[in-house]
Amino acid sequence: QLGATYLGEGRCSFEVWAPNAKIVELHQVSPNDRILPLRSERGYHRATFEKVAPGARYFLRLDNTIERPDPVSRFQPEGVHGPSEVIDSYFEWTDSDWFGLPLRDYIIYELHVGTFTQEGTFAAIIPYLPELKELGITAIELMPVAQFPGDRNWGYDGVDLFAVQNSYGGPNELKRLVNACHQVGLAVILDVVYNHLGPEGNYLRDFGNYFSEDYHTFWGPALNFDGPDSDEVRRFFLENALHWQTDFHMDALRLDAIHAIRDASAFPFLQELSQITQRRSEMLNRRFHLIGESDLNNPRVILPGNLGGYGLDAQWSDDFHHCLHVLLTGEKNGYYADFCGIKRLEKFFREGYTYTGEYSLTRRRRHGLPPKLNQAKQFVVFSQNHDQIGNRMLGDRLANLCSFEDLKLAAGCVLLSPFIPLLFMGEEYGERAPFQYFISHTDRGLVEAVQKGRREEFANFVWEGEVPDPQAESTFNACKLNHRLRTHESHQNLYDLYRELIEIRKSVPAITNAEKDSLEAQASESQNVLFVR
Amino acid sequence: QLGATYLGEGRCSFEVWAPNAKIVELHQVSPNDRILPLRSERGYHRATFEKVAPGARYFLRLDNTIERPDPVSRFQPEGVHGPSEVIDSYFEWTDSDWFGLPLRDYIIYELHVGTFTQEGTFAAIIPYLPELKELGITAIELMPVAQFPGDRNWGYDGVDLFAVQNSYGGPNELKRLVNACHQVGLAVILDVVYNHLGPEGNYLRDFGNYFSEDYHTFWGPALNFDGPDSDEVRRFFLENALHWQTDFHMDALRLDAIHAIRDASAFPFLQELSQITQRRSEMLNRRFHLIGESDLNNPRVILPGNLGGYGLDAQWSDDFHHCLHVLLTGEKNGYYADFCGIKRLEKFFREGYTYTGEYSLTRRRRHGLPPKLNQAKQFVVFSQNHDQIGNRMLGDRLANLCSFEDLKLAAGCVLLSPFIPLLFMGEEYGERAPFQYFISHTDRGLVEAVQKGRREEFANFVWEGEVPDPQAESTFNACKLNHRLRTHESHQNLYDLYRELIEIRKSVPAITNAEKDSLEAQASESQNVLFVR
Repeated sequence: QLGATYLGEGRCSFEVWAPNAKIVELHQVSPNDRILPLRSERGYHRATFEKVAPGARYFLRLDNTIERPDPVSRFQPEGVHGPSEVIDSYFEWTDSDWFGLPLRDYIIYELHVGTFTQEGTFAAIIPYLPELKELGITAIELMPVAQFPGDRNWGYDGVDLFAVQNSYGGPNELKRLVNACHQVGLAVILDVVYNHLGPEGNYLRDFGNYFSEDYHTFWGPALNFDGPDSDEVRRFFLENALHWQTDFHMDALRLDAIHAIRDASAFPFLQELSQITQRRSEMLNRRFHLIGESDLNNPRVILPGNLGGYGLDAQWSDDFHHCLHVLLTGEKNGYYADFCGIKRLEKFFREGYTYTGEYSLTRRRRHGLPPKLNQAKQFVVFSQNHDQIGNRMLGDRLANLCSFEDLKLAAGCVLLSPFIPLLFMGEEYGERAPFQYFISHTDRGLVEAVQKGRREEFANFVWEGEVPDPQAESTFNACKLNHRLRTHESHQNLYDLYRELIEIRKSVPAITNAEKDSLEAQASESQNVLFVR
Repeated sequence: QLGATYLGEGRCSFEVWAPNAKIVELHQVSPNDRILPLRSERGYHRATFEKVAPGARYFLRLDNTIERPDPVSRFQPEGVHGPSEVIDSYFEWTDSDWFGLPLRDYIIYELHVGTFTQEGTFAAIIPYLPELKELGITAIELMPVAQFPGDRNWGYDGVDLFAVQNSYGGPNELKRLVNACHQVGLAVILDVVYNHLGPEGNYLRDFGNYFSEDYHTFWGPALNFDGPDSDEVRRFFLENALHWQTDFHMDALRLDAIHAIRDASAFPFLQELSQITQRRSEMLNRRFHLIGESDLNNPRVILPGNLGGYGLDAQWSDDFHHCLHVLLTGEKNGYYADFCGIKRLEKFFREGYTYTGEYSLTRRRRHGLPPKLNQAKQFVVFSQNHDQIGNRMLGDRLANLCSFEDLKLAAGCVLLSPFIPLLFMGEEYGERAPFQYFISHTDRGLVEAVQKGRREEFANFVWEGEVPDPQAESTFNACKLNHRLRTHESHQNLYDLYRELIEIRKSVPAITNAEKDSLEAQASESQNVLFVR
């Protein structure tokens, strides 16, 4: 097992893949300061030491020159640049009667730990679980919790992919949250980022060929899933998935932007990931799902292996969002230009993608293939999510753009659809706080680059006003939910409707079991009406 | 139809995709000099002109500034930098009773037009057809004939992909050759390069986004099969394939290095190519095959679309070559290190790839997947080919490395295998002339870069001697075949064996119809013997 594994009785084993280093030593910095050598073998460095108890902090020292946190650190109590901490993976789980939920029963509630509560911790979420249960959702989806630089971040700048964000409460608090969710019958989905690493505190390159020489992503160097040494890189990510699945009892992973996981190998990483987590699921006797965020409109992603697919269980469907958003707001700028007219939404209901080979104006090419062999419950739909709100210049929610009546219509479209619905925290009562882009990097040059990039991102859109400063603490604070709004008049009405729609979804078999091809979708352009039955 | 299409009676239509240009004009330079405007519409520029007869030469003039050959030129009588020529596509075909051959009957003879004969032309090949027929081969495979810079080139530096090399005789002479082949019952495979363009005379960038912004290949910028404007780029290559299939009656295309055709779209170019050429095949009522050169060991390439495949009919199998080569020569340097031991060849006979997920030392990762659903007749095997000879420093053939007895063994391995056999010109009589790398660029800097690159390529190998100068005419001349050798003693013996083996292959049903899973392959490491039955 990679990383530090506490074996009990003061013994701890260490394993790190660092083919770039000839000599790797453990530099324990607390409770006492000492340097311990690891044995090297084929790029791996290993040792088991006595008198290393949980709480011990250490760096890995490479070739007597540089000291780095463990790439597989389970905890970074002092942040991304500080030492790694040995933790005891033991936790008193009380969810042994929890076997997970079938994907078709998922009603997902996406939340960002830092802004869901004033405290911004895992612990602070737990008191809200009964309310969420009462709302009717069946799964919460946590935006990424891997250690990121600073205290404020969406989570997509994570760099210690096995560590749980210290400011959220660290690994044990996350386990407490998952355990509490399972107690009340909620599944937990964790958002993980396997396509890039954050720009600050990313020390992987010092250890080995984690990054591809062939590919780049929008957010930085792509990870190496098909080049030399990619077996070891894959192992790192496979173990990461198993780590969340096994040690944290996660029910599902949401794989961020899988179109940026570039991989031309005969056995794609995603297929391997799906096989390995399914095998583990059988071993653990607990359902496990992989949900990809995919921009490809490629059914291959969610087809089983024997049909040439990667075997993911489901994928996010931005097409649905865009169709609905354009209908509700009339916005037609940027990529929304591709989704004008109610016929686009009709197409989605019938097929599962809006683009199944049609020419896309913004992509300037044909896009997608029809997902004929896929079921409705393989598509996650939403009227809002962190990206669709947060990637707007001001991070304004639908509640800031539409009337309550329109919000109700949106809720109906999502919750009564044959697809898997996802809500973004607060939308159920029409939260007004924005969800803006925020960071808390320490590197000044990087902060300026992000601020600049953020301004440039809106070149294609015609929005008025100033781009909020992503680095400002006030930006982050402005995004925190005002849960009390829920019991205020129209907000309460909206909330009640969400609850009722979810209740209907669960209780009416025609809706619960709806399929793409068992429903009839008929749009009238002139009346701007879509009938689905 | 793209390019210049002669309509008869002095009328000719022109169409070019040039979104980078606002104004495109036809600059006719011969027989008279005049400038004629094309109409622009959505990136395409078109017109039909009177008094443009076959033989007329022209450039395309972009935005009043630069003049370029037509990207879809059918003929470049003065080379890659000169004007394009309007040709009459009419040809008096006499092969209307030719319907092609099923792939399982292919016994392929790869030849390079420039060095197969002293003349180095299509016309000079025709007198050899009866001999080739007599040998028993059923298809000739022409190394690329698209117009390349200068008179000497393997063909992989082609830049006018619709034009037939002027020094080989141009388009009409190629048709004469194909027609003659069909007359004697030989199929013709054309090698086409859809992964890059040659470095000299490549003017495509002036017209549109032909090249990818995301990918690069070993040989230069990758082509744009999935980015903005890739529909139009695909159309260019799809029309190219249909051009050879329809106008030149080609029976098959050999697609060079498809692993360098980078494409992350939902509907990969190769799949589209296979669908479109199959549809055309049905229309023409003539069999048509796509054979990919693939380095991926990925069965997806040769699986049908309904199993998630790209639908190519067959692929080249370098694994087979490498196993056999190591056994015959004992060479274990470079990538040969991956193919040591007779068990590797046994594996190939059983499965169709040697690497089906095993760790490869030279790739430093696991490689391949088992092609369980593929048939033996989807793998093209050889003991030599242009690459495996020509990419050696001295271009030495097996006949320069092995005894006649070993050459006979190699012939047996290839010709009695259940796979599709391919011979490289001259191997059937143990030709001794090397097949070295040669070019005839006019750009001095480029020539030096190639010379340098060539020297660097052999860094991993431990060969003695000087790298032959690729630019020297003597290098090219040294590669021409000595056909008279065929009737000399041991050479004649070898030739007779080839002929007999082919005869056996054709007449013994157990060999003709052999399949991977109907044969038994058993290797003995200690005796260095492989039984296949």
